[in-house]
Amino acid sequence: MERQYPSAALERAVGEFAKLPGIGRKTALRLVLHMLSRPQEEVECFGRVFSTLKQDIRYCRVCHNISDSDVCEICSSPGRDSLTLCVVENVQDVLAIENTMQYRGLYHVLGGVISPVDGIGPQDLQIDSLVRRVSEEGIREVILALSPTMEGDTTNFYISRRLNGKGVRISVIARGVTVGNNLEYADEVSLGRSIVDRTPFI
Amino acid sequence: MERQYPSAALERAVGEFAKLPGIGRKTALRLVLHMLSRPQEEVECFGRVFSTLKQDIRYCRVCHNISDSDVCEICSSPGRDSLTLCVVENVQDVLAIENTMQYRGLYHVLGGVISPVDGIGPQDLQIDSLVRRVSEEGIREVILALSPTMEGDTTNFYISRRLNGKGVRISVIARGVTVGNNLEYADEVSLGRSIVDRTPFI
Repeated sequence: MERQYPSAALERAVGEFAKLPGIGRKTALRLVLHMLSRPQEEVECFGRVFSTLKQDIRYCRVCHNISDSDVCEICSSPGRDSLTLCVVENVQDVLAIENTMQYRGLYHVLGGVISPVDGIGPQDLQIDSLVRRVSEEGIREVILALSPTMEGDTTNFYISRRLNGKGVRISVIARGVTVGNNLEYADEVSLGRSIVDRTPFI
Repeated sequence: MERQYPSAALERAVGEFAKLPGIGRKTALRLVLHMLSRPQEEVECFGRVFSTLKQDIRYCRVCHNISDSDVCEICSSPGRDSLTLCVVENVQDVLAIENTMQYRGLYHVLGGVISPVDGIGPQDLQIDSLVRRVSEEGIREVILALSPTMEGDTTNFYISRRLNGKGVRISVIARGVTVGNNLEYADEVSLGRSIVDRTPFI
């Protein structure tokens, strides 16, 4: 049941929060009432930050990650392996992989995956610039690190076809059982892949 | 571990969301990235709504509920019992009680409960105006509908003392076992209250 709010301004603010993913109208109301209990300057500051968000955020012109400078810190770091590219969907994935401390190459942020259902085709993603980087920068290996979903797989397939014949090694992140979980809880597909893709025991 | 974001504008936007109750930095980042994927005018509109939120929201001068007019719809409705007041903590509680369709009197929104730990005393709440209303409007019954917590009980006690000698009946919403739940899962205190406060079986 849609609740009736006693004020249009309240309705508007709740509606704005409720547009965000994972926030329902009940949570939205709680957030708005919390803001009303805060000092005016704090709430104004909140509004200001989002009014100019799209203008304030800039992207690295090389890897398309969010960045304060024209070329991001990772792309301009001399200590990284500039001949390896890890292809990811978005900024969160860069952060997640950086947190593992297991990767020292560069990234390429696609900005999504191919998803005909959502109307996202290859031309909506940073795939042309990936192909260009591979040719121009003499990349040796492209690691595809997209989500293990149908859309991710489709995108992997499309990219590998586009890179075909460019003399670059293409790999995909390993799929298998998750570390620390009991084997009996692993899903069949991952467990199957973990057997097919087994690695030598050192 | 605090993540390092690759941009100050991103950091700022994530920080603003993460100030809200129940939103951690991971969720905040997801929300900001969602906004970046939306059209500029939509994100600007979001910001604008909150920039002016505190100025746009008005309160009923009688019951202090959020309202578009000087006196809210409930207070000005001729069909309601204007001699009964239900004292609640905030707007959500008014909505929740309205949704039950069991109450036809008026409300009085305190704006919180007495909580020494949070530095909230009686003078920070709409208690003086409640006492005034009871005297001036000839209220017959005040129903205390605050949360069944220590702070709620303290506030109930304080209000009942302030209303002492004004010839108004003071009641408190029933505490007992929740409807539809198995008795064995009820907490001891509520179950105890449900026996002490048992009502005649019709």
